[in-house]
Amino acid sequence: MKSTDLIDICDAHEKLIPFNKLLGIKIVNNEKDNLKIRLDMRDDLVGNFIKGILHGGVISSVLDVTGGMAAALDVIDQMDGKTRDEIATRLGNMGTIDMRVDFLRPGKGEYFLATGHVMRTGATVAVTRMELFNDNDLLIAVGTGTYYVG
Amino acid sequence: MKSTDLIDICDAHEKLIPFNKLLGIKIVNNEKDNLKIRLDMRDDLVGNFIKGILHGGVISSVLDVTGGMAAALDVIDQMDGKTRDEIATRLGNMGTIDMRVDFLRPGKGEYFLATGHVMRTGATVAVTRMELFNDNDLLIAVGTGTYYVG
Amino acid sequence: MKSTDLIDICDAHEKLIPFNKLLGIKIVNNEKDNLKIRLDMRDDLVGNFIKGILHGGVISSVLDVTGGMAAALDVIDQMDGKTRDEIATRLGNMGTIDMRVDFLRPGKGEYFLATGHVMRTGATVAVTRMELFNDNDLLIAVGTGTYYVG
Amino acid sequence: MKSTDLIDICDAHEKLIPFNKLLGIKIVNNEKDNLKIRLDMRDDLVGNFIKGILHGGVISSVLDVTGGMAAALDVIDQMDGKTRDEIATRLGNMGTIDMRVDFLRPGKGEYFLATGHVMRTGATVAVTRMELFNDNDLLIAVGTGTYYVG
Repeated sequence: MKSTDLIDICDAHEKLIPFNKLLGIKIVNNEKDNLKIRLDMRDDLVGNFIKGILHGGVISSVLDVTGGMAAALDVIDQMDGKTRDEIATRLGNMGTIDMRVDFLRPGKGEYFLATGHVMRTGATVAVTRMELFNDNDLLIAVGTGTYYVG
Repeated sequence: MKSTDLIDICDAHEKLIPFNKLLGIKIVNNEKDNLKIRLDMRDDLVGNFIKGILHGGVISSVLDVTGGMAAALDVIDQMDGKTRDEIATRLGNMGTIDMRVDFLRPGKGEYFLATGHVMRTGATVAVTRMELFNDNDLLIAVGTGTYYVG
Repeated sequence: MKSTDLIDICDAHEKLIPFNKLLGIKIVNNEKDNLKIRLDMRDDLVGNFIKGILHGGVISSVLDVTGGMAAALDVIDQMDGKTRDEIATRLGNMGTIDMRVDFLRPGKGEYFLATGHVMRTGATVAVTRMELFNDNDLLIAVGTGTYYVG
Repeated sequence: MKSTDLIDICDAHEKLIPFNKLLGIKIVNNEKDNLKIRLDMRDDLVGNFIKGILHGGVISSVLDVTGGMAAALDVIDQMDGKTRDEIATRLGNMGTIDMRVDFLRPGKGEYFLATGHVMRTGATVAVTRMELFNDNDLLIAVGTGTYYVG
Protein backbone atom coordinates (compact mmCIF):
# COMPACT_ATOMS: atom_id res chain seq x y z
CA MET A 1 0.00 0.00 0.00
CA LYS A 2 1.23 3.46 -0.82
CA SER A 3 1.29 6.13 1.86
CA THR A 4 -1.30 8.08 -0.10
CA ASP A 5 -3.71 5.23 0.60
CA LEU A 6 -3.13 5.60 4.32
CA ILE A 7 -4.02 9.26 4.02
CA ASP A 8 -7.25 8.18 2.34
CA ILE A 9 -8.04 5.82 5.19
CA CYS A 10 -7.58 8.57 7.77
CA ASP A 11 -9.61 10.88 5.64
CA ALA A 12 -12.37 8.26 5.52
CA HIS A 13 -12.20 7.95 9.29
CA GLU A 14 -12.78 11.65 9.78
CA LYS A 15 -15.20 12.35 6.96
CA LEU A 16 -17.01 9.11 6.20
CA ILE A 17 -17.68 7.81 9.70
CA PRO A 18 -20.69 9.95 10.57
CA PHE A 19 -20.36 9.87 14.37
CA ASN A 20 -16.62 10.74 14.21
CA LYS A 21 -17.63 13.73 12.10
CA LEU A 22 -20.37 14.70 14.56
CA LEU A 23 -17.83 14.67 17.42
CA GLY A 24 -15.20 16.47 15.34
CA ILE A 25 -12.51 13.80 15.80
CA LYS A 26 -9.30 14.58 13.86
CA ILE A 27 -6.41 12.20 13.18
CA VAL A 28 -3.40 14.44 13.79
CA ASN A 29 -0.74 11.75 13.34
CA ASN A 30 -1.26 8.34 11.78
CA GLU A 31 2.18 6.83 12.34
CA LYS A 32 1.83 3.50 14.14
CA ASP A 33 4.26 4.46 16.90
CA ASN A 34 2.99 7.97 17.36
CA LEU A 35 -0.77 7.85 16.79
CA LYS A 36 -2.43 11.10 17.84
CA ILE A 37 -6.12 11.90 17.71
CA ARG A 38 -7.53 15.31 18.60
CA LEU A 39 -10.88 16.47 19.84
CA ASP A 40 -11.81 20.11 20.35
CA MET A 41 -14.08 20.98 23.26
CA ARG A 42 -17.52 22.15 22.23
CA ASP A 43 -20.55 23.15 24.27
CA ASP A 44 -22.59 20.22 23.05
CA LEU A 45 -20.00 17.64 24.18
CA VAL A 46 -20.43 18.57 27.83
CA GLY A 47 -21.76 16.08 30.39
CA ASN A 48 -21.84 17.97 33.66
CA PHE A 49 -23.06 21.46 32.75
CA ILE A 50 -22.19 22.89 36.19
CA LYS A 51 -18.58 21.75 35.94
CA GLY A 52 -18.36 22.22 32.16
CA ILE A 53 -16.56 18.93 31.59
CA LEU A 54 -16.55 16.41 28.75
CA HIS A 55 -19.33 13.79 28.84
CA GLY A 56 -18.11 10.28 29.75
CA GLY A 57 -19.61 9.03 26.52
CA VAL A 58 -17.46 11.42 24.48
CA ILE A 59 -14.36 10.18 26.32
CA SER A 60 -15.37 6.56 25.66
CA SER A 61 -16.01 7.38 22.01
CA VAL A 62 -12.61 8.99 21.46
CA LEU A 63 -10.83 6.12 23.24
CA ASP A 64 -12.71 3.53 21.18
CA VAL A 65 -11.85 5.32 17.93
CA THR A 66 -8.20 5.60 19.05
CA GLY A 67 -7.95 1.90 19.93
CA GLY A 68 -9.61 0.94 16.66
CA MET A 69 -7.22 3.16 14.73
CA ALA A 70 -4.21 1.64 16.55
CA ALA A 71 -5.46 -1.84 15.66
CA ALA A 72 -6.08 -0.77 12.04
CA LEU A 73 -2.58 0.69 11.65
CA ASP A 74 -1.20 -2.60 12.95
CA VAL A 75 -3.29 -4.61 10.49
CA ILE A 76 -2.16 -2.35 7.63
CA ASP A 77 1.44 -2.93 8.70
CA GLN A 78 0.97 -6.70 8.72
CA MET A 79 -0.67 -6.63 5.28
CA ASP A 80 2.28 -4.96 3.58
CA GLY A 81 2.25 -6.13 -0.05
CA LYS A 82 -1.47 -6.84 -0.19
CA THR A 83 -3.77 -4.88 -2.49
CA ARG A 84 -5.75 -1.90 -1.39
CA ASP A 85 -8.96 -3.90 -1.78
CA GLU A 86 -7.75 -6.75 0.39
CA ILE A 87 -6.80 -4.29 3.12
CA ALA A 88 -10.07 -2.37 2.83
CA THR A 89 -12.07 -5.60 3.12
CA ARG A 90 -10.22 -6.65 6.28
CA LEU A 91 -10.52 -3.19 7.83
CA GLY A 92 -14.24 -3.19 7.03
CA ASN A 93 -14.71 -6.38 9.05
CA MET A 94 -12.95 -5.04 12.13
CA GLY A 95 -14.97 -4.26 15.22
CA THR A 96 -14.69 -3.62 18.94
CA ILE A 97 -15.31 -6.72 21.05
CA ASP A 98 -15.05 -5.05 24.44
CA MET A 99 -13.57 -1.99 26.10
CA ARG A 100 -12.79 -0.75 29.61
CA VAL A 101 -12.53 2.95 30.33
CA ASP A 102 -11.15 4.47 33.54
CA PHE A 103 -12.16 8.07 34.12
CA LEU A 104 -9.22 9.46 36.08
CA ARG A 105 -9.76 13.23 36.12
CA PRO A 106 -12.49 15.67 35.03
CA GLY A 107 -12.43 16.30 31.27
CA LYS A 108 -11.60 19.99 31.45
CA GLY A 109 -9.77 21.68 28.58
CA GLU A 110 -10.08 23.46 25.27
CA TYR A 111 -8.84 20.44 23.36
CA PHE A 112 -7.86 16.85 24.06
CA LEU A 113 -5.29 14.49 22.55
CA ALA A 114 -5.58 10.72 22.54
CA THR A 115 -2.90 8.17 21.81
CA GLY A 116 -2.94 4.40 21.62
CA HIS A 117 -0.91 1.32 20.78
CA VAL A 118 -1.38 -2.39 20.27
CA MET A 119 -0.28 -4.50 23.26
CA ARG A 120 -0.94 -7.85 21.63
CA THR A 121 -1.87 -8.84 18.19
CA GLY A 122 -3.00 -12.14 16.74
CA ALA A 123 -4.61 -13.43 13.58
CA THR A 124 -8.08 -12.52 14.83
CA VAL A 125 -7.84 -10.39 17.98
CA ALA A 126 -5.84 -7.29 18.92
CA VAL A 127 -5.64 -5.75 22.40
CA THR A 128 -4.91 -2.04 22.65
CA ARG A 129 -4.15 0.54 25.30
CA MET A 130 -5.38 4.11 24.96
CA GLU A 131 -4.80 7.37 26.86
CA LEU A 132 -6.54 10.73 26.72
CA PHE A 133 -4.79 13.93 27.80
CA ASN A 134 -6.11 17.48 28.03
CA ASP A 135 -4.44 20.63 26.68
CA ASN A 136 -2.45 20.83 29.91
CA ASP A 137 -0.98 17.34 29.38
CA LEU A 138 -3.04 15.97 32.28
CA LEU A 139 -4.10 12.32 31.94
CA ILE A 140 -7.92 12.43 31.82
CA ALA A 141 -8.78 8.82 31.05
CA VAL A 142 -7.27 5.50 30.01
CA GLY A 143 -8.80 2.60 28.18
CA THR A 144 -8.14 -0.99 27.18
CA GLY A 145 -9.88 -2.40 24.14
CA THR A 146 -10.18 -5.80 22.50
CA TYR A 147 -10.78 -5.67 18.74
CA TYR A 148 -11.74 -8.26 16.18
CA VAL A 149 -9.22 -7.97 13.35
CA GLY A 150 -9.69 -11.32 11.55
CA MET B 1 -38.78 14.40 47.61
CA LYS B 2 -41.98 14.66 45.66
CA SER B 3 -42.43 12.73 42.44
CA THR B 4 -42.58 16.03 40.56
CA ASP B 5 -38.96 16.57 41.56
CA LEU B 6 -37.99 13.29 39.98
CA ILE B 7 -39.65 14.39 36.78
CA ASP B 8 -37.51 17.52 36.95
CA ILE B 9 -34.37 15.46 37.34
CA CYS B 10 -35.18 13.38 34.27
CA ASP B 11 -36.05 16.51 32.40
CA ALA B 12 -32.69 17.97 33.36
CA HIS B 13 -30.99 14.79 32.15
CA GLU B 14 -32.56 15.08 28.71
CA LYS B 15 -32.53 18.83 28.24
CA LEU B 16 -29.69 20.19 30.38
CA ILE B 17 -26.97 17.64 29.74
CA PRO B 18 -25.76 18.89 26.36
CA PHE B 19 -24.30 15.64 25.03
CA ASN B 20 -27.44 13.66 25.99
CA LYS B 21 -29.41 16.22 24.02
CA LEU B 22 -27.04 15.92 21.05
CA LEU B 23 -27.53 12.14 21.02
CA GLY B 24 -31.27 12.42 21.56
CA ILE B 25 -31.36 10.24 24.66
CA LYS B 26 -34.87 10.00 26.19
CA ILE B 27 -35.75 8.64 29.64
CA VAL B 28 -38.87 6.60 28.89
CA ASN B 29 -39.33 5.17 32.39
CA ASN B 30 -37.64 6.42 35.55
CA GLU B 31 -38.88 3.82 38.03
CA LYS B 32 -35.92 2.27 39.83
CA ASP B 33 -36.98 -1.28 39.01
CA ASN B 34 -37.94 -0.58 35.44
CA LEU B 35 -35.54 2.04 34.14
CA LYS B 36 -35.84 2.47 30.38
CA ILE B 37 -33.83 4.80 28.19
CA ARG B 38 -34.47 5.21 24.48
CA LEU B 39 -32.30 6.27 21.58
CA ASP B 40 -33.58 6.73 18.04
CA MET B 41 -31.28 5.79 15.18
CA ARG B 42 -30.04 8.75 13.18
CA ASP B 43 -27.65 8.96 10.23
CA ASP B 44 -25.06 10.89 12.20
CA LEU B 45 -24.86 8.22 14.95
CA VAL B 46 -23.53 5.60 12.54
CA GLY B 47 -20.06 4.08 12.94
CA ASN B 48 -19.68 1.67 10.06
CA PHE B 49 -21.29 3.41 7.08
CA ILE B 50 -21.23 0.28 4.93
CA LYS B 51 -23.15 -1.74 7.50
CA GLY B 52 -25.21 1.23 8.74
CA ILE B 53 -24.77 0.35 12.40
CA LEU B 54 -24.53 2.40 15.58
CA HIS B 55 -21.04 3.72 16.45
CA GLY B 56 -19.46 1.96 19.46
CA GLY B 57 -19.08 5.34 21.12
CA VAL B 58 -22.83 5.93 20.94
CA ILE B 59 -23.45 2.53 22.54
CA SER B 60 -20.91 3.31 25.30
CA SER B 61 -22.54 6.71 25.83
CA VAL B 62 -26.05 5.32 26.22
CA LEU B 63 -24.83 2.58 28.59
CA ASP B 64 -22.91 5.11 30.70
CA VAL B 65 -25.96 7.38 30.93
CA THR B 66 -28.13 4.37 31.84
CA GLY B 67 -25.77 3.18 34.58
CA GLY B 68 -25.47 6.70 35.95
CA MET B 69 -29.27 7.06 35.97
CA ALA B 70 -29.65 3.70 37.77
CA ALA B 71 -27.14 4.82 40.39
CA ALA B 72 -28.90 8.21 40.71
CA LEU B 73 -32.34 6.62 41.22
CA ASP B 74 -30.80 4.47 43.93
CA VAL B 75 -29.25 7.49 45.65
CA ILE B 76 -32.59 9.34 45.48
CA ASP B 77 -34.26 6.31 47.05
CA GLN B 78 -31.72 6.21 49.88
CA MET B 79 -32.13 9.94 50.54
CA ASP B 80 -35.87 9.74 51.15
CA GLY B 81 -36.73 12.57 53.55
CA LYS B 82 -33.82 14.80 52.60
CA THR B 83 -34.38 18.16 50.94
CA ARG B 84 -34.30 18.71 47.23
CA ASP B 85 -31.10 20.74 47.61
CA GLU B 86 -29.32 18.02 49.55
CA ILE B 87 -30.24 15.50 46.87
CA ALA B 88 -29.24 17.83 44.04
CA THR B 89 -25.84 18.45 45.64
CA ARG B 90 -25.14 14.74 46.00
CA LEU B 91 -26.27 13.99 42.46
CA GLY B 92 -24.07 16.83 41.18
CA ASN B 93 -21.01 15.19 42.73
CA MET B 94 -21.66 11.78 41.17
CA GLY B 95 -19.38 10.53 38.41
CA THR B 96 -18.36 7.42 36.52
CA ILE B 97 -15.18 5.79 37.90
CA ASP B 98 -14.88 3.06 35.30
CA MET B 99 -16.97 1.13 32.80
CA ARG B 100 -16.73 -2.02 30.71
CA VAL B 101 -18.74 -2.43 27.55
CA ASP B 102 -19.18 -5.69 25.63
CA PHE B 103 -20.35 -5.24 22.05
CA LEU B 104 -22.33 -8.42 21.42
CA ARG B 105 -24.14 -7.78 18.12
CA PRO B 106 -24.17 -5.09 15.40
CA GLY B 107 -26.21 -2.04 16.43
CA LYS B 108 -28.85 -2.34 13.74
CA GLY B 109 -32.33 -0.95 14.34
CA GLU B 110 -34.61 2.06 14.10
CA TYR B 111 -34.51 2.60 17.83
CA PHE B 112 -32.76 1.14 20.88
CA LEU B 113 -33.81 0.63 24.50
CA ALA B 114 -31.42 0.48 27.43
CA THR B 115 -32.08 -0.72 30.93
CA GLY B 116 -29.93 -0.88 34.06
CA HIS B 117 -29.91 -1.67 37.75
CA VAL B 118 -27.63 -1.32 40.74
CA MET B 119 -25.87 -4.57 41.70
CA ARG B 120 -24.15 -3.17 44.78
CA THR B 121 -24.43 0.08 46.57
CA GLY B 122 -22.37 1.60 49.34
CA ALA B 123 -21.86 4.98 50.95
CA THR B 124 -19.45 6.06 48.21
CA VAL B 125 -19.51 3.58 45.34
CA ALA B 126 -22.29 1.92 43.32
CA VAL B 127 -21.82 -0.85 40.76
CA THR B 128 -24.38 -1.14 37.97
CA ARG B 129 -25.27 -3.49 35.14
CA MET B 130 -26.65 -2.18 31.86
CA GLU B 131 -28.13 -3.76 28.72
CA LEU B 132 -28.95 -2.33 25.30
CA PHE B 133 -31.57 -3.94 23.05
CA ASN B 134 -32.62 -3.04 19.52
CA ASP B 135 -36.20 -2.62 18.26
CA ASN B 136 -36.28 -6.37 17.65
CA ASP B 137 -35.49 -7.12 21.32
CA LEU B 138 -32.03 -8.38 20.37
CA LEU B 139 -29.30 -7.81 22.98
CA ILE B 140 -26.80 -5.47 21.29
CA ALA B 141 -24.44 -4.66 24.14
CA VAL B 142 -23.99 -5.02 27.89
CA GLY B 143 -22.03 -2.90 30.32
CA THR B 144 -20.82 -2.81 33.90
CA GLY B 145 -20.12 0.53 35.53
CA THR B 146 -18.63 1.72 38.80
CA TYR B 147 -19.92 5.11 39.94
CA TYR B 148 -18.84 7.50 42.66
CA VAL B 149 -21.98 8.35 44.66
CA GLY B 150 -20.45 9.78 47.88
CA MET C 1 -20.00 -36.92 21.38
CA LYS C 2 -21.50 -39.25 23.95
CA SER C 3 -22.47 -37.96 27.35
CA THR C 4 -19.78 -40.16 28.91
CA ASP C 5 -17.23 -38.03 27.07
CA LEU C 6 -18.59 -34.90 28.69
CA ILE C 7 -18.17 -36.53 32.08
CA ASP C 8 -14.54 -37.17 31.12
CA ILE C 9 -14.06 -33.52 30.22
CA CYS C 10 -15.39 -32.38 33.58
CA ASP C 11 -13.28 -34.95 35.28
CA ALA C 12 -10.25 -33.64 33.43
CA HIS C 13 -11.15 -30.11 34.52
CA GLU C 14 -11.19 -31.09 38.18
CA LYS C 15 -8.36 -33.59 38.26
CA LEU C 16 -6.02 -32.72 35.42
CA ILE C 17 -5.90 -28.94 35.67
CA PRO C 18 -3.44 -28.60 38.55
CA PHE C 19 -4.55 -25.20 39.85
CA ASN C 20 -8.24 -26.18 39.80
CA LYS C 21 -7.24 -29.16 41.92
CA LEU C 22 -5.23 -26.96 44.29
CA LEU C 23 -8.27 -24.70 44.80
CA GLY C 24 -10.64 -27.67 45.10
CA ILE C 25 -12.98 -26.53 42.32
CA LYS C 26 -15.79 -29.04 41.63
CA ILE C 27 -18.13 -29.08 38.64
CA VAL C 28 -21.48 -29.85 40.27
CA ASN C 29 -23.60 -29.53 37.13
CA ASN C 30 -22.31 -29.49 33.55
CA GLU C 31 -25.55 -28.83 31.69
CA LYS C 32 -25.13 -25.83 29.42
CA ASP C 33 -28.19 -24.05 30.82
CA ASN C 34 -27.53 -24.87 34.43
CA LEU C 35 -23.76 -24.83 34.89
CA LYS C 36 -22.80 -24.99 38.56
CA ILE C 37 -19.30 -24.93 39.99
CA ARG C 38 -18.58 -25.29 43.69
CA LEU C 39 -15.74 -24.18 45.91
CA ASP C 40 -15.46 -25.05 49.58
CA MET C 41 -13.98 -22.47 51.93
CA ARG C 42 -10.58 -23.41 53.30
CA ASP C 43 -8.20 -21.56 55.61
CA ASP C 44 -5.56 -21.19 52.92
CA LEU C 45 -7.98 -19.50 50.47
CA VAL C 46 -8.43 -16.51 52.76
CA GLY C 47 -7.34 -13.01 51.74
CA ASN C 48 -8.19 -10.78 54.67
CA PHE C 49 -7.33 -12.85 57.74
CA ILE C 50 -9.06 -10.45 60.14
CA LYS C 51 -12.36 -10.69 58.28
CA GLY C 52 -11.83 -14.34 57.24
CA ILE C 53 -13.00 -13.77 53.68
CA LEU C 54 -12.08 -15.31 50.34
CA HIS C 55 -9.04 -13.80 48.57
CA GLY C 56 -9.94 -11.73 45.49
CA GLY C 57 -7.64 -13.96 43.46
CA VAL C 58 -9.64 -17.05 44.43
CA ILE C 59 -12.86 -15.31 43.35
CA SER C 60 -11.25 -14.30 40.02
CA SER C 61 -9.99 -17.85 39.53
CA VAL C 62 -13.39 -19.47 40.10
CA LEU C 63 -15.10 -16.94 37.79
CA ASP C 64 -12.49 -17.49 35.07
CA VAL C 65 -12.91 -21.28 35.31
CA THR C 66 -16.71 -20.86 35.21
CA GLY C 67 -16.63 -18.61 32.15
CA GLY C 68 -14.22 -20.95 30.40
CA MET C 69 -16.44 -23.94 31.20
CA ALA C 70 -19.53 -22.08 29.89
CA ALA C 71 -17.67 -21.30 26.66
CA ALA C 72 -16.46 -24.92 26.41
CA LEU C 73 -19.97 -26.34 26.86
CA ASP C 74 -21.14 -24.03 24.09
CA VAL C 75 -18.34 -25.16 21.77
CA ILE C 76 -19.14 -28.82 22.52
CA ASP C 77 -22.77 -28.11 21.66
CA GLN C 78 -21.84 -26.48 18.37
CA MET C 79 -19.56 -29.40 17.46
CA ASP C 80 -22.28 -32.01 17.72
CA GLY C 81 -21.39 -34.81 15.32
CA LYS C 82 -17.65 -34.16 15.37
CA THR C 83 -15.23 -36.70 16.76
CA ARG C 84 -13.92 -36.65 20.28
CA ASP C 85 -10.44 -35.78 18.97
CA GLU C 86 -11.67 -32.82 16.96
CA ILE C 87 -13.48 -31.48 20.02
CA ALA C 88 -10.50 -32.08 22.31
CA THR C 89 -8.19 -30.23 19.91
CA ARG C 90 -10.48 -27.21 19.77
CA LEU C 91 -10.96 -27.16 23.55
CA GLY C 92 -7.19 -27.40 23.99
CA ASN C 93 -6.72 -24.22 21.97
CA MET C 94 -9.24 -22.20 23.98
CA GLY C 95 -8.01 -19.42 26.25
CA THR C 96 -9.15 -16.37 28.17
CA ILE C 97 -8.56 -13.11 26.27
CA ASP C 98 -9.74 -10.76 29.02
CA MET C 99 -11.94 -10.69 32.09
CA ARG C 100 -13.57 -8.14 34.35
CA VAL C 101 -14.46 -9.00 37.93
CA ASP C 102 -16.67 -6.90 40.20
CA PHE C 103 -16.30 -7.70 43.88
CA LEU C 104 -19.73 -6.88 45.26
CA ARG C 105 -19.73 -8.31 48.79
CA PRO C 106 -17.20 -9.89 51.19
CA GLY C 107 -16.57 -13.56 50.34
CA LYS C 108 -17.92 -14.99 53.57
CA GLY C 109 -19.33 -18.52 53.65
CA GLU C 110 -18.60 -22.20 54.09
CA TYR C 111 -18.99 -22.86 50.39
CA PHE C 112 -19.59 -20.91 47.19
CA LEU C 113 -21.46 -21.68 43.96
CA ALA C 114 -20.66 -20.13 40.61
CA THR C 115 -22.75 -20.13 37.48
CA GLY C 116 -22.17 -18.77 34.00
CA HIS C 117 -23.55 -18.58 30.50
CA VAL C 118 -22.48 -17.47 27.03
CA MET C 119 -23.88 -14.05 26.02
CA ARG C 120 -22.46 -14.08 22.51
CA THR C 121 -20.70 -16.69 20.53
CA GLY C 122 -18.88 -16.52 17.23
CA ALA C 123 -16.48 -18.62 15.21
CA THR C 124 -13.51 -17.37 17.22
CA VAL C 125 -14.67 -15.42 20.27
CA ALA C 126 -17.23 -16.09 23.01
CA VAL C 127 -18.34 -13.60 25.67
CA THR C 128 -19.60 -14.97 28.97
CA ARG C 129 -21.23 -13.72 32.14
CA MET C 130 -20.45 -15.30 35.50
CA GLU C 131 -21.84 -14.98 39.04
CA LEU C 132 -20.58 -16.22 42.39
CA PHE C 133 -22.94 -16.78 45.32
CA ASN C 134 -22.18 -17.80 48.88
CA ASP C 135 -23.96 -20.55 50.89
CA ASN C 136 -26.58 -17.97 51.86
CA ASP C 137 -27.40 -17.25 48.21
CA LEU C 138 -25.84 -13.79 48.47
CA LEU C 139 -24.24 -12.48 45.26
CA ILE C 140 -20.52 -12.11 46.10
CA ALA C 141 -19.03 -11.24 42.72
CA VAL C 142 -19.84 -11.05 39.02
CA GLY C 143 -17.59 -11.33 36.02
CA THR C 144 -17.55 -10.86 32.27
CA GLY C 145 -15.05 -12.82 30.21
CA THR C 146 -13.96 -12.88 26.58
CA TYR C 147 -12.62 -16.25 25.42
CA TYR C 148 -10.81 -17.38 22.33
CA VAL C 149 -12.72 -20.41 21.00
CA GLY C 150 -11.43 -20.59 17.40
CA MET D 1 5.76 5.50 60.14
CA LYS D 2 9.27 4.09 60.33
CA SER D 3 10.63 2.04 57.47
CA THR D 4 10.74 -0.99 59.76
CA ASP D 5 6.95 -0.78 59.88
CA LEU D 6 6.77 -1.01 56.11
CA ILE D 7 8.90 -4.13 56.25
CA ASP D 8 6.38 -5.53 58.73
CA ILE D 9 3.51 -4.76 56.35
CA CYS D 10 5.22 -6.57 53.47
CA ASP D 11 6.03 -9.42 55.79
CA ALA D 12 2.37 -9.59 56.77
CA HIS D 13 1.40 -9.63 53.11
CA GLU D 14 3.59 -12.64 52.40
CA LYS D 15 3.14 -14.59 55.61
CA LEU D 16 -0.21 -13.59 57.07
CA ILE D 17 -2.37 -13.52 53.98
CA PRO D 18 -3.01 -17.23 53.59
CA PHE D 19 -3.69 -17.33 49.86
CA ASN D 20 -0.60 -15.23 49.07
CA LYS D 21 1.38 -17.79 51.05
CA LEU D 22 -0.27 -20.67 49.19
CA LEU D 23 0.73 -19.10 45.86
CA GLY D 24 4.20 -18.23 47.09
CA ILE D 25 3.95 -14.52 46.29
CA LYS D 26 7.05 -12.55 47.37
CA ILE D 27 7.40 -8.77 47.61
CA VAL D 28 10.85 -8.20 46.12
CA ASN D 29 10.76 -4.40 46.22
CA ASN D 30 8.30 -2.27 48.19
CA GLU D 31 9.34 1.18 47.01
CA LYS D 32 6.33 3.05 45.67
CA ASP D 33 8.00 3.87 42.37
CA ASN D 34 9.58 0.50 41.85
CA LEU D 35 7.16 -2.08 43.26
CA LYS D 36 8.17 -5.61 42.30
CA ILE D 37 6.34 -8.80 43.19
CA ARG D 38 7.67 -12.23 42.32
CA LEU D 39 6.02 -15.58 41.75
CA ASP D 40 7.92 -18.79 41.10
CA MET D 41 6.41 -21.31 38.69
CA ARG D 42 5.22 -24.49 40.39
CA ASP D 43 3.51 -27.57 38.98
CA ASP D 44 0.32 -26.91 40.92
CA LEU D 45 -0.07 -23.39 39.50
CA VAL D 46 -0.52 -24.68 35.96
CA GLY D 47 -3.76 -24.19 34.03
CA ASN D 48 -3.20 -25.85 30.67
CA PHE D 49 -1.26 -29.02 31.47
CA ILE D 50 -0.44 -29.71 27.82
CA LYS D 51 1.16 -26.31 27.35
CA GLY D 52 2.49 -26.11 30.92
CA ILE D 53 1.43 -22.51 31.40
CA LEU D 54 0.25 -20.50 34.39
CA HIS D 55 -3.49 -20.70 35.20
CA GLY D 56 -5.40 -17.51 34.40
CA GLY D 57 -6.56 -17.42 38.01
CA VAL D 58 -2.96 -17.31 39.24
CA ILE D 59 -2.23 -14.41 36.89
CA SER D 60 -5.36 -12.58 38.10
CA SER D 61 -4.35 -13.24 41.71
CA VAL D 62 -0.84 -11.85 41.31
CA LEU D 63 -2.14 -8.77 39.47
CA ASP D 64 -4.78 -8.14 42.15
CA VAL D 65 -2.18 -8.43 44.92
CA THR D 66 0.15 -6.11 42.99
CA GLY D 67 -2.55 -3.47 42.45
CA GLY D 68 -3.59 -3.69 46.08
CA MET D 69 0.03 -3.29 47.19
CA ALA D 70 0.49 -0.26 44.90
CA ALA D 71 -2.64 1.33 46.38
CA ALA D 72 -1.46 0.49 49.92
CA LEU D 73 1.98 2.05 49.39
CA ASP D 74 0.23 5.17 48.13
CA VAL D 75 -2.04 5.29 51.18
CA ILE D 76 0.99 4.83 53.49
CA ASP D 77 2.68 7.71 51.69
CA GLN D 78 -0.35 9.96 52.12
CA MET D 79 -0.60 9.10 55.83
CA ASP D 80 2.91 10.24 56.66
CA GLY D 81 2.86 11.40 60.28
CA LYS D 82 -0.07 9.22 61.34
CA THR D 83 0.38 6.45 63.89
CA ARG D 84 0.99 2.85 62.98
CA ASP D 85 -2.48 1.96 64.31
CA GLU D 86 -4.24 4.56 62.18
CA ILE D 87 -2.45 3.29 59.10
CA ALA D 88 -3.14 -0.37 59.93
CA THR D 89 -6.85 0.39 60.40
CA ARG D 90 -7.11 2.11 57.04
CA LEU D 91 -5.16 -0.63 55.24
CA GLY D 92 -7.42 -3.22 56.88
CA ASN D 93 -10.48 -1.58 55.34
CA MET D 94 -9.06 -1.53 51.82
CA GLY D 95 -10.53 -3.83 49.20
CA THR D 96 -10.72 -4.42 45.46
CA ILE D 97 -13.84 -2.95 43.86
CA ASP D 98 -13.22 -4.25 40.35
CA MET D 99 -10.43 -5.44 38.10
CA ARG D 100 -9.81 -6.08 34.42
CA VAL D 101 -7.15 -8.52 33.29
CA ASP D 102 -5.89 -8.87 29.72
CA PHE D 103 -4.08 -12.12 29.03
CA LEU D 104 -1.60 -11.15 26.33
CA ARG D 105 0.75 -14.13 26.05
CA PRO D 106 0.96 -17.68 27.47
CA GLY D 107 2.30 -17.70 31.05
CA LYS D 108 5.46 -19.64 30.31
CA GLY D 109 8.52 -19.20 32.52
CA GLU D 110 10.37 -20.33 35.62
CA TYR D 111 9.43 -17.18 37.48
CA PHE D 112 7.32 -14.08 36.93
CA LEU D 113 7.66 -10.45 38.05
CA ALA D 114 4.75 -8.07 38.50
CA THR D 115 4.84 -4.33 38.86
CA GLY D 116 2.15 -1.75 39.43
CA HIS D 117 1.48 1.91 40.09
CA VAL D 118 -1.39 4.18 41.05
CA MET D 119 -2.86 6.14 38.10
CA ARG D 120 -5.34 8.12 40.16
CA THR D 121 -5.88 8.46 43.84
CA GLY D 122 -8.67 10.08 45.80
CA ALA D 123 -9.95 10.09 49.36
CA THR D 124 -11.86 6.85 48.81
CA VAL D 125 -10.88 5.26 45.51
CA ALA D 126 -7.54 4.48 43.84
CA VAL D 127 -7.09 3.21 40.28
CA THR D 128 -4.00 1.16 39.50
CA ARG D 129 -2.25 -0.33 36.50
CA MET D 130 -0.40 -3.63 36.76
CA GLU D 131 1.88 -5.65 34.47
CA LEU D 132 3.19 -9.19 34.66
CA PHE D 133 6.40 -10.23 32.91
CA ASN D 134 8.03 -13.64 32.62
CA ASP D 135 11.71 -14.47 33.27
CA ASN D 136 12.42 -13.47 29.65
CA ASP D 137 11.00 -9.98 30.19
CA LEU D 138 8.01 -10.81 27.98
CA LEU D 139 4.76 -9.04 28.90
CA ILE D 140 2.36 -11.85 29.88
CA ALA D 141 -0.63 -9.92 31.18
CA VAL D 142 -1.79 -6.44 32.17
CA GLY D 143 -4.47 -5.37 34.57
CA THR D 144 -6.38 -2.33 35.74
CA GLY D 145 -7.85 -2.31 39.23
CA THR D 146 -10.13 -0.02 41.22
CA TYR D 147 -9.57 -0.17 44.97
CA TYR D 148 -11.51 1.16 47.92
CA VAL D 149 -8.99 3.06 50.09
CA GLY D 150 -11.32 5.18 52.27
